[in-house]
Amino acid sequence: MSEAVTKTAEIGLIGLGTMGGNLALNIAENGFRIAVWNRTVEKTETFHAKAGDLAANLVPTKTLEEFVQAIAKPRAIILMVPAGEAVDAQIEALKPLLDADDLIIDAGNANYHETNRRDAAVTADSPRFMGIGVSGGEEGARFGPSIMAGGPKSAWEQVGHILEAISAKHEGTPCAAHLGEAGAGHLVKTVHNGIEYADMQMIAEVYGVMRDGLGLDASEISKVFGAWNEGILQSYLIEISHKVAGTADPDTGKPMLDIILDTAGQKGTGRWTAIEALMLGTPASAIEAAVAARNMSARLGERKAGQAAFGAAPGKVLGDAVSAKDLEAALVAGKIICYAQGFGLILEAARQYGWSMPLPEIARIWRQGCIIRSAMLNDMSEALGEDPERNLMLAPFFAEKLKETHGALRKVVALGALNGLAVPALSAALSYFDIMRTERSTANMLQGQRDFFGAHGFERTDKDGKGYHGPWAMNTV
Amino acid sequence: MSEAVTKTAEIGLIGLGTMGGNLALNIAENGFRIAVWNRTVEKTETFHAKAGDLAANLVPTKTLEEFVQAIAKPRAIILMVPAGEAVDAQIEALKPLLDADDLIIDAGNANYHETNRRDAAVTADSPRFMGIGVSGGEEGARFGPSIMAGGPKSAWEQVGHILEAISAKHEGTPCAAHLGEAGAGHLVKTVHNGIEYADMQMIAEVYGVMRDGLGLDASEISKVFGAWNEGILQSYLIEISHKVAGTADPDTGKPMLDIILDTAGQKGTGRWTAIEALMLGTPASAIEAAVAARNMSARLGERKAGQAAFGAAPGKVLGDAVSAKDLEAALVAGKIICYAQGFGLILEAARQYGWSMPLPEIARIWRQGCIIRSAMLNDMSEALGEDPERNLMLAPFFAEKLKETHGALRKVVALGALNGLAVPALSAALSYFDIMRTERSTANMLQGQRDFFGAHGFERTDKDGKGYHGPWAMNTV
Repeated sequence: MSEAVTKTAEIGLIGLGTMGGNLALNIAENGFRIAVWNRTVEKTETFHAKAGDLAANLVPTKTLEEFVQAIAKPRAIILMVPAGEAVDAQIEALKPLLDADDLIIDAGNANYHETNRRDAAVTADSPRFMGIGVSGGEEGARFGPSIMAGGPKSAWEQVGHILEAISAKHEGTPCAAHLGEAGAGHLVKTVHNGIEYADMQMIAEVYGVMRDGLGLDASEISKVFGAWNEGILQSYLIEISHKVAGTADPDTGKPMLDIILDTAGQKGTGRWTAIEALMLGTPASAIEAAVAARNMSARLGERKAGQAAFGAAPGKVLGDAVSAKDLEAALVAGKIICYAQGFGLILEAARQYGWSMPLPEIARIWRQGCIIRSAMLNDMSEALGEDPERNLMLAPFFAEKLKETHGALRKVVALGALNGLAVPALSAALSYFDIMRTERSTANMLQGQRDFFGAHGFERTDKDGKGYHGPWAMNTV
Repeated sequence: MSEAVTKTAEIGLIGLGTMGGNLALNIAENGFRIAVWNRTVEKTETFHAKAGDLAANLVPTKTLEEFVQAIAKPRAIILMVPAGEAVDAQIEALKPLLDADDLIIDAGNANYHETNRRDAAVTADSPRFMGIGVSGGEEGARFGPSIMAGGPKSAWEQVGHILEAISAKHEGTPCAAHLGEAGAGHLVKTVHNGIEYADMQMIAEVYGVMRDGLGLDASEISKVFGAWNEGILQSYLIEISHKVAGTADPDTGKPMLDIILDTAGQKGTGRWTAIEALMLGTPASAIEAAVAARNMSARLGERKAGQAAFGAAPGKVLGDAVSAKDLEAALVAGKIICYAQGFGLILEAARQYGWSMPLPEIARIWRQGCIIRSAMLNDMSEALGEDPERNLMLAPFFAEKLKETHGALRKVVALGALNGLAVPALSAALSYFDIMRTERSTANMLQGQRDFFGAHGFERTDKDGKGYHGPWAMNTV
């Protein structure tokens, strides 16, 4: 490897698993010389040997010292090692070898609180730190992910051109951006995944209405999704739902959907989003409902016992009470609302952390390369550009769409409720819409109760000030 | 104070705020000599001077050393100081003065993770540690709270008789129990509060249906709650809802409910419950919906803008489509379901921590002294006694009730959805019921999507094993 090391690399990458290897190849293919290192030398050698034409831009190294020396100063080093302790261990190992103006970039799937912590810890000892969310899975890493970067501005100035070059492109514009300080990039990636959970869950819910309420088979359902993918719902998730529903199992010839067990797994980022919403005190009820629905799906034994006790919901009950057009409109409304919740969460985080997070940029870089890419994100980027502080539902374009579609959402939720077809995320979205368009809600009852049992005090509708109490005596509770 | 100190106290208490002071008076009134200490000596003296007849059982002390020496060995010391750092500081100050078999009891409103941490830290250096949840507010502390204790068995053996004596009584039975190791008591208190949030929110939702859907005024609504309090819903929260709705504002003569602003506050324990459910991977969707609803209520400015954009929901739309009987039944169903979620959460925590938490005992000690006390908890205690591992919805008594009432819940959720009356917690409860009674849910679509974009693999309905993949090529995402 010694010959390669003599040529200085523009960037380095540690961790040649599938994600890291693909990211390195992507960087090499875009014309940047990249030093790579893996704990196992053999892995580095195999990776290099299999890189073909791209090998010329790779600088394989055997030791961490050799790796660091192979990178031009100020160095930029991407870590793509398993999230958690491995990241901390790698940072500790690197630090003594780095200069004060070097840059460590964690490209793994970190919880943004960890990134905040690492940012503070790394920066205290000098090298700069950056956390980037990389969306798009293995293939995205190789051919163009959506990249959400958080960290100091100087870090983006140093490596932004590389991240933009390797990112997905939407009509030529890179889907990579600097989204704020410290953990801002990883926070945005987390919320991306939370929105993804809600988007997927709502699709599953209308799938359920078609399957159980309308009695459509998988291929009919596939056609409906296919048609929707030509309209306002055009998106990667609708496209793959069309394909998933339209695929037959090679073993049995049955539709794949009918042989896939209905117990959904999760890797935790949807859960992080829901927890974050709770921590920040911002409502993300459609996302929370989607996470809870996955947890329910995992309890197959309990569900079987439930069906034995209460019977299944009656099938094919909807007749022509609901049309594919209604379901499409309900999904449009639900989607706008869950994105409003997701962007609201990011806005609240920006406020509480004092981060300058450009919301329109976030929608912009989600338009390509990531799982939730969709036509609607274009309109969202524009709407957030008009006023990033405004609830997305209130942007004229989306307000208009909601006016057109909330009636269908009501219909689907109501028919689901009456007929035992569970639509938890769509229901949560509708409740959010109805509370957030109601000046006089019902929380006055909560405040009355809280003051009654705990003397918590309330505000009045007719006077300024806080801490009013009702004339109830303090009661024994 | 020197005379008092010569008589040895059976227990000690630090922190003479309202809660601590009331707890000390309660202990004294039940015939136990109790040493008390406060950081400010003046507060201790005032407290003692105002204690009247109970002063004879109080041992006021000026220094921490004097306080510790006033307590019989092995000592038991209750901390009632503000949750958080003050607890840690107090423990640190106490430790050098204590013997190995002494016992520190944190009776504050601690997050149970903190209690787990303190249990490990305190125990490592010898004295034993106990965390107790005390429910019932200031008046409960004085005259009989519900007490949820966690910690080593030996601790309960030492102080259980005192905690039982001062607790609320349900037909003579103390509402105090040892509920498991370390943070088990504080966890149960947290879940109690989470259930309280859901219970309150569902009441607020049916209040909204009566006010906005049926056009009832506060005094009519008060009568409805009053009638319900004679039936299966008999509970403290229904009772106070009756009273809150029936109370007039002395200043304006208007119903209190109509002058209380609809922005609900929270102190965090509902949020903790929702976060805990997410961490443990157990669905608590009705509780989460209640927490989210409070967060929405706080956004009054956004809600006003929403009403300006979309208009308010039309009022008095329900005519006789829904009756008070329907609303009562919907509330019964919703309540059973949210308790099923709460007990499910406790069960999951017990499993994951390896704690022996007696679920029937928990329902039993909630029957009196705490905010969620209700007639139904008696039946819940019995049902959980039959089989604590079974979903509460499946216990014969509650399955029967749900069969009688889920139709009404459907009706209320559907009419709410159609008419813009937000019922988020009731909707979440219904979705939970419908998913948990459905063997074949819609999560197969989620698993198909996840395998398509991330090769996450799935199980099959027709074969054992995991990690099956669909015949879709790995797609660029």
